[in-house]
Amino acid sequence: MTETTITRAERAQLAMMLEVCAFPKPGNVDRCHDYPTTRLEHFLASTILVRPALERAEQAGRGIGNLILEAVKLTSGHSGGNTHFGAYILLIPLVMGGDIAGADRLVRETTVEDAIQFYRAFGETRVRVLSGDELDVDDPRAIEELKVRQMTLFDVMLYSAKNDMVAREWINGFQLTRRGADLLFSHGPGPESVSMAFLDLLATEPDTFISKKHGKDAAWEVMQKAQDVRQGLRDLVAFDQECINTGMNPGSIADIIIASIYIALGEGWIWDC
Amino acid sequence: MTETTITRAERAQLAMMLEVCAFPKPGNVDRCHDYPTTRLEHFLASTILVRPALERAEQAGRGIGNLILEAVKLTSGHSGGNTHFGAYILLIPLVMGGDIAGADRLVRETTVEDAIQFYRAFGETRVRVLSGDELDVDDPRAIEELKVRQMTLFDVMLYSAKNDMVAREWINGFQLTRRGADLLFSHGPGPESVSMAFLDLLATEPDTFISKKHGKDAAWEVMQKAQDVRQGLRDLVAFDQECINTGMNPGSIADIIIASIYIALGEGWIWDC
Repeated sequence: MTETTITRAERAQLAMMLEVCAFPKPGNVDRCHDYPTTRLEHFLASTILVRPALERAEQAGRGIGNLILEAVKLTSGHSGGNTHFGAYILLIPLVMGGDIAGADRLVRETTVEDAIQFYRAFGETRVRVLSGDELDVDDPRAIEELKVRQMTLFDVMLYSAKNDMVAREWINGFQLTRRGADLLFSHGPGPESVSMAFLDLLATEPDTFISKKHGKDAAWEVMQKAQDVRQGLRDLVAFDQECINTGMNPGSIADIIIASIYIALGEGWIWDC
Repeated sequence: MTETTITRAERAQLAMMLEVCAFPKPGNVDRCHDYPTTRLEHFLASTILVRPALERAEQAGRGIGNLILEAVKLTSGHSGGNTHFGAYILLIPLVMGGDIAGADRLVRETTVEDAIQFYRAFGETRVRVLSGDELDVDDPRAIEELKVRQMTLFDVMLYSAKNDMVAREWINGFQLTRRGADLLFSHGPGPESVSMAFLDLLATEPDTFISKKHGKDAAWEVMQKAQDVRQGLRDLVAFDQECINTGMNPGSIADIIIASIYIALGEGWIWDC
């Protein structure tokens, strides 16, 4: 066997692949579950097609907003819709900066131009993050508003952090990303650890993607049911199917787990054993 | 949605991804089946990590043996062993040449140096193709023998074609690759067509990877059972499990289906619908 050194971009791609394959993973697409319009293959196609944006992130070291836009554009060509928008918000600075410390420094240096590019990236997706206010991404005046207020992309994330756990990672030094990586190490090597770390986060954090779609109570209920599963009071496979059937997909925790895998791989966590 | 143009290298990666995900696919790794030491994730990791070799193939237009060696080296770093050796034998010339006509021309122009590099690629894998004769790849004298006989890589494939359906593709103008692509079109768009085209080939061609591992009778029996499945006389899922349990994995047909998907995608077959 030949030792090969993988690049940061490849590490990010492996993280995206390992996350989506991991099973069981309540409510999300995995080896054994598709959603009607978004399948396992859509997630894996994005994993392949995003590479040029990740490579540019690794080489350039700047332009976070533009690179998120590029990543979204590269992976919006298939019919599966947006698959990894939240993941790119985390992976692009992590690949640019290498690790959490590097990313944490870069996100604080973002500009108004980064914020504008980021809003353009929204336009390429069907994701709604801010709704019903003057920074609604569906409102063309939003970009003008960013300029008037001189909001950087970091400011946008600060603004979104209350209702969005992915945005919150930018503000708090990637705390859940870090915790997810630690959980992967605690569960040991091998791909099974991904679904275990996922369940750990699901049982302790209300997923904000669910909050936005179904309200805070729904997110809280999913979290409590995940706690039940961990305590052996609820069947994991049945809970997974229930989440799939009701469209309760914890997409933000999936995005964070991707970032966690990226970090853990960089620190020596072994997926293939 | 943004229209994005994918490169040949990306098309080859999508083909590798779609093939391994397709289910049910008797005897092979798929969404629902792993082998103990080779999992879905190993195949998908190779799909990601092979990209530089495919990009070089797209750009260079020469050096088939060296590019197969590079592809194998890039994807031998994980513990899953060789996942796609046969697929690279087909994809590298197809990506270089663009289509079957282009690949057919290129394989006939290969050199003794290509043959030597190809034997080195063997050394990186655990695959046995030629066994018990003077061109055995485990025999260090084999490379000397190639030089003495002035065998090009095309000559090596001609020599192997009798017992290897992947090598045969080089000799006969990629006939099964073509048939697989036609089958994909006949089954219509969507990833389900991959497993249907796979079953079609399995029911009409004895797989030479099975022949080498278990003998010709075993390959013939798998083919006949696949015919039973198509005629509704045998249950597909049970047949799949029986193949997995007995290690009857039709790896050569999988390699050819990858090449077929690559061709079909290039001709407008749509996977995501």
